[in-house]
Amino acid sequence: MNLQDFRRSYAAAFEEALLEEFPEQDATSIHPSIRYSLTNGGKRLRPFFILALVQAFGGDPKSAFSLAKAIEYIHCYSLIHDDLPAMDDDDYRRGKPSNHKAFDEATAILAGDALQAKAFEVISQDTDLAAESRVSLLAQLAKAAGDQGMVAGQMKDIIYEGQKVSLAQLKALYDQKTGALIRFSLQAPLGLVQVSDQTKLEMASFAQAYALAFQIQNDLQEVLWTDEERGKHTHSDQELEKNTYPALLGLEAAQEALRGEIKRCEEILSRLEEVMDTTLIRDFLDYLKV
Amino acid sequence: MNLQDFRRSYAAAFEEALLEEFPEQDATSIHPSIRYSLTNGGKRLRPFFILALVQAFGGDPKSAFSLAKAIEYIHCYSLIHDDLPAMDDDDYRRGKPSNHKAFDEATAILAGDALQAKAFEVISQDTDLAAESRVSLLAQLAKAAGDQGMVAGQMKDIIYEGQKVSLAQLKALYDQKTGALIRFSLQAPLGLVQVSDQTKLEMASFAQAYALAFQIQNDLQEVLWTDEERGKHTHSDQELEKNTYPALLGLEAAQEALRGEIKRCEEILSRLEEVMDTTLIRDFLDYLKV
Repeated sequence: MNLQDFRRSYAAAFEEALLEEFPEQDATSIHPSIRYSLTNGGKRLRPFFILALVQAFGGDPKSAFSLAKAIEYIHCYSLIHDDLPAMDDDDYRRGKPSNHKAFDEATAILAGDALQAKAFEVISQDTDLAAESRVSLLAQLAKAAGDQGMVAGQMKDIIYEGQKVSLAQLKALYDQKTGALIRFSLQAPLGLVQVSDQTKLEMASFAQAYALAFQIQNDLQEVLWTDEERGKHTHSDQELEKNTYPALLGLEAAQEALRGEIKRCEEILSRLEEVMDTTLIRDFLDYLKV
Repeated sequence: MNLQDFRRSYAAAFEEALLEEFPEQDATSIHPSIRYSLTNGGKRLRPFFILALVQAFGGDPKSAFSLAKAIEYIHCYSLIHDDLPAMDDDDYRRGKPSNHKAFDEATAILAGDALQAKAFEVISQDTDLAAESRVSLLAQLAKAAGDQGMVAGQMKDIIYEGQKVSLAQLKALYDQKTGALIRFSLQAPLGLVQVSDQTKLEMASFAQAYALAFQIQNDLQEVLWTDEERGKHTHSDQELEKNTYPALLGLEAAQEALRGEIKRCEEILSRLEEVMDTTLIRDFLDYLKV
């Protein structure tokens, strides 16, 4: 099965599962704001990494639904908070008004806060998973999202604004800011299937390479894509004098770096052929094209 | 042992434990901002409820340190976000500049986000607790903090601003906004000790009465206390046309309601004398005096 077919076979059930935690429609609830952002046309990259990996290692993707929901809730909360005026001050997200523009700032802050809590709630309450599995996943998720993971990266992103940083600093920032959640999506699901320690190490390397490639590609899109393709104003990162791969290395070297990470991903997958069906994961490399 | 002595015997160890999760001092870390708010003179009401309850039922308070830390992290994050300009817009917290004034808004948002993640991290990683206990505590905490708990109350608080609400609506708001965390502090630790279902029910009633009394007292302080006593400008809730007990019922009826809830607490504790040492918990009623 290719990724497109796999996604098609789980998309409806996953979207429904994602929203079922936030059913209320009344205006005194935070749910309408959360539903707005959850249905804002996200690619579901992280949750489908999880579902696809479980499938690739012979497990049942349905068994990973709570994990997949949790990572999307964390991702969604991070975008809502990231768009706030005090943060990146983005009025648009994927071509639609960002949460604080569609609602207001207070609601956006609370929507993010509630989404984060829900991520931990859905995993802790998934009685189909052993308690030991749940606490392990919860600890990994908390670390990926928190003061040593995503938040640490966002903090550095703000501090470094207007400063010139080294490539090593930029890589460390990316590894936390976007890398932590992507790496979680590619490593945590291995706890739900039977795999060797060697495979776990290979997947950790894959996750690191993919996460970096993803961020370099994101930087390149800022420079190369039109507003329409990106769903928001391009060059906003440049305007903010942010540190990016093309800004530090130049356009060609950045593209070369992206190709390098993609190649690394492909090599790892070749080695993993023996222990997993790599078709689905290989298709995820298509998302890295600029 | 009275509460004062009990607190004295655990205060230093608890404060150290609370900060040990955030050791970094450099400016590219979110830790300085978090440490600032964690050491801002909080009463530690919620964590000491947890430690005192475990002690009162014959357990070792040290076994509840991760739980006590977690509730303080959630409480601290909620105060940081609540003080933001888009929320209550409070420049001071306990007589000191609030987090976003001492740092900036972006840092305050991220500090709150990281504190929430840390709450779930410390419980999930507490290997002294059985995995089953941990997932139960995590699920309860997530619900208390999230879209059906604290966040729901904060949302209503914003929506109701400038509207006249009924007493029933105000009670429901309080039960979520501040009640959810206080009730968690008074109920979750029972999972760490041996108690009967009957005792759990009694403690649930106690928790509900205490939480409501706590909020009524808070309302009354806004009216009756000076700036100095409260550590911030009084009447700010009135300025915002917020709904409070005194605003809805008048000062005397609000004081009467507070006395009623305190009496309910005392009656429940009298019934619990047989199964627990109520001394410590009884001392917590002193915090409800206006």
